[in-house]
Amino acid sequence: MPQDKLIIFDTTLRDGEQAPGIALTPDEKLAIARQLAKLRVDVIEAGFAAASEGDFYGVSQIAKLVEGPVIASLARCVPDDIDRAHDAVRHAARHRIHVFQSTSPIHMERMLRMTPNEVMRSIVKSVRRARRYTDDVEFSPQDATRSDPDFMIACCRAAVREGASTINIPDTVGFATPEDYVALLGRVYDEVLEGRDDVIVSTHCHNDLGLAVANSLSAIHAGARQIEGAVNGIGERAGNTSTEEIIMAVKTRQDHFGVEIDANTEEIVPTSRLVSRLTGYPIQFNKAVVGRNAFAHESGIHQHGVLRARETYEIMDPASVGATSQIVLGKHSGRAGFADALAKLDIVLEDDQFADAFRRFKDLADRKVEINERELRTIIRSEQDRIDETIRLVSMRVSGGSDVSPSASVRVSRGAEAEEEEFEGEGGGMVDATFTALKKAFGIDARLLDYRVVPVTAGADAMAEVNVVIRVGGFSHNGRGVSTDVVEGSGHAFVEALNRALSVHDG
Amino acid sequence: MPQDKLIIFDTTLRDGEQAPGIALTPDEKLAIARQLAKLRVDVIEAGFAAASEGDFYGVSQIAKLVEGPVIASLARCVPDDIDRAHDAVRHAARHRIHVFQSTSPIHMERMLRMTPNEVMRSIVKSVRRARRYTDDVEFSPQDATRSDPDFMIACCRAAVREGASTINIPDTVGFATPEDYVALLGRVYDEVLEGRDDVIVSTHCHNDLGLAVANSLSAIHAGARQIEGAVNGIGERAGNTSTEEIIMAVKTRQDHFGVEIDANTEEIVPTSRLVSRLTGYPIQFNKAVVGRNAFAHESGIHQHGVLRARETYEIMDPASVGATSQIVLGKHSGRAGFADALAKLDIVLEDDQFADAFRRFKDLADRKVEINERELRTIIRSEQDRIDETIRLVSMRVSGGSDVSPSASVRVSRGAEAEEEEFEGEGGGMVDATFTALKKAFGIDARLLDYRVVPVTAGADAMAEVNVVIRVGGFSHNGRGVSTDVVEGSGHAFVEALNRALSVHDG
Repeated sequence: MPQDKLIIFDTTLRDGEQAPGIALTPDEKLAIARQLAKLRVDVIEAGFAAASEGDFYGVSQIAKLVEGPVIASLARCVPDDIDRAHDAVRHAARHRIHVFQSTSPIHMERMLRMTPNEVMRSIVKSVRRARRYTDDVEFSPQDATRSDPDFMIACCRAAVREGASTINIPDTVGFATPEDYVALLGRVYDEVLEGRDDVIVSTHCHNDLGLAVANSLSAIHAGARQIEGAVNGIGERAGNTSTEEIIMAVKTRQDHFGVEIDANTEEIVPTSRLVSRLTGYPIQFNKAVVGRNAFAHESGIHQHGVLRARETYEIMDPASVGATSQIVLGKHSGRAGFADALAKLDIVLEDDQFADAFRRFKDLADRKVEINERELRTIIRSEQDRIDETIRLVSMRVSGGSDVSPSASVRVSRGAEAEEEEFEGEGGGMVDATFTALKKAFGIDARLLDYRVVPVTAGADAMAEVNVVIRVGGFSHNGRGVSTDVVEGSGHAFVEALNRALSVHDG
Repeated sequence: MPQDKLIIFDTTLRDGEQAPGIALTPDEKLAIARQLAKLRVDVIEAGFAAASEGDFYGVSQIAKLVEGPVIASLARCVPDDIDRAHDAVRHAARHRIHVFQSTSPIHMERMLRMTPNEVMRSIVKSVRRARRYTDDVEFSPQDATRSDPDFMIACCRAAVREGASTINIPDTVGFATPEDYVALLGRVYDEVLEGRDDVIVSTHCHNDLGLAVANSLSAIHAGARQIEGAVNGIGERAGNTSTEEIIMAVKTRQDHFGVEIDANTEEIVPTSRLVSRLTGYPIQFNKAVVGRNAFAHESGIHQHGVLRARETYEIMDPASVGATSQIVLGKHSGRAGFADALAKLDIVLEDDQFADAFRRFKDLADRKVEINERELRTIIRSEQDRIDETIRLVSMRVSGGSDVSPSASVRVSRGAEAEEEEFEGEGGGMVDATFTALKKAFGIDARLLDYRVVPVTAGADAMAEVNVVIRVGGFSHNGRGVSTDVVEGSGHAFVEALNRALSVHDG
């Protein structure tokens, strides 16, 4: 049986970066590589050195400056690619050349226009050439899962004879099921390694059918001891296996997989955020392990459970990945979540008051996305109180441009008496000027934490929704505004957020 | 052996809608249900009728107005829940009551505070009650994968005795691996059904470890003939099985799964977009099947392959899900993609010209995210030509507000002579007014296809990046502008996009 240690090979900077629209600078690549070293992955595939001058420089920088993981570069079965890969990675204490060649009929015939014999010869020559530079050579038969298994295995055997120490079986087009993949990897383990324990079988799966993580994990049972993945699952098309999902599945289900990994799981969320920020690829809210919602609970039954015992609906400790549990109050919340939220605000109600307040909460929640502290407070007061404390935006006016200083004036009315007052503001832009004027109107010192514009319908004269998050004291408040004008929409969003802040801090 | 038809049970409107921050109005729910009917799912779980008045109304509306699928409502093992569920779904030609009860020790002890005996009795009573209303009753032992399998199976047997016709085995916390799940479902199939072919075994998987789709599919081998999923994989925490990934996996790998589904796959992308828009949940670029990149190729080797034969790197026909293949030119592109792009513009180069142009292209691509037609044209011209044709935005000025008509004036210079001219525009908002003025300045009739604001740094006075996509004739062009003022940033983005349009349409 193979070793107990599972090697995490991260290809965020190679296959991940090949995703459309991602173009990291060498410095950004270096920042991600440093973070991957903190996450303690075993191998960083830093790029494809022969692809361009920028790629070459990026790989070299990482090889020179990042300590810990093995640094690898990809190379086609072309002499120049292998030489460039070596030139780029040689600075690293431990480095690897990753040679690949397509072995499927469709790739050989339609893309390479090479015979199987020519393909086999190119593999032999290229692994031999790479081995002149380093002991650590990985070979991948591209599109392995659509190759003739006998031919593909023959290629892998040839690569091992020439000195490759890792044999990686890519499901390049994300076609395999776990059953297919475990059967194929089992054959590779038996027929290529033939009992050698100095060669590692590796997985490289794509997610076209949503099976990348499952396929990778299934291969552990067949003896695979390296999994290739990318942070946030980025990569060609639907992306690669998510590095973070592999790490957490193996940790959480150690009973099932029985392999050890070195990863420092607490660096998972910071790594995910960094990759998202630098690539410009947002993380889906419902992404496993690192999504905004991975540890968030809004529905009544789930809140009830988690408040009584976290393990009722969580199988991982959020802290172990650098995240925290969240109880979100909304239309699906029940008595337990509502009571918990009141308790956090030090509000104690008698049973009949609680029942009344809960009913009002459910009414409001049916009409609103999320309920925050201010709304909770207003729920337990009378309707009259609620109207009295709100500041209304009567009108606003802004101007700006490239050679005028952006300015805004806002007219607001306060409380039931509806007295109107006007406030002025300037700023770095018209949105900032509006925010300044409104902060004066509310008499609140707030900081803008987040600002987003979401087009609601298409076209420049269409409705846009502006979402803001502001921070006042220790509290965050969000606000939303919809308008055909993005600055006016921003004004409405600020007013909503500032009204929420006002209530909590008055209350 | 069970039937060959796989039932697609979609819970976008129930488990999906329970995700934090989603609160669909009854009309929005109706719109999604209608789209699900077009997608031809078999069962729509329209909500949890007893959760609130809004939920009840939403389920009733769908039961009254959506034809085709079975309409279901969830219900706890509580008489009132079952009565409410029936009241809501009874309007549908075919309707289902979906009764659930937790059977795991942690849920029974810590959340329900009930003994196994009490749990079993509540199941018997509730299924019996539901059966008085309808023949179509589904039972789910919540947290089945962490339950004592013997007890869980006993509960399912009791539910079948009372008349439940679907037994659904939820992996509520996303803990199972495919091996675990197939073993458990196999036991349910053998021990609960005992050869009956009028009862269906169903899956309901969560994605906490990235295994929801794999677990669901694995269960088909164990005899499961219903899979529960949600569009875009939304749902509690890391979400549910993605309905669209299940549909495409079963279709693409029919050889492996051997079951039939009724879904109309061409409605997949429209359904995904609708759910994303109404829930406000963005779709990750690298999401399987429906992500922006699912059929996009930027890297040289992949473009080379796809241009020679689509099947080299695509296992699904994009048209079959309502999408199209895309060749994106960028830093990872190679000669094949570059030549293809030039051919599309009817540009023919001699070999040495091509080599020169390709080198300039790679230089530019190392510094830019995406390369469009205009840049391609400039690559094959001299530097001097490039400066001459560009229109520069010298300055701009805008004003607007709630009671003033938004207006903009722009000052531009044209070509090397740098003559300046001024143009005015009005519109629905200041961005629209700016766009109008710039269209006059360029003498181009353009339509805005997409508009996005991405905060680059935090705060209202921070830099924001505006991205626009415009359409002129049959071509799309994008532009990007960065500024502390969102309207000014929009102006720069329009200018970039309009210059690109100018170049292509002049050229």
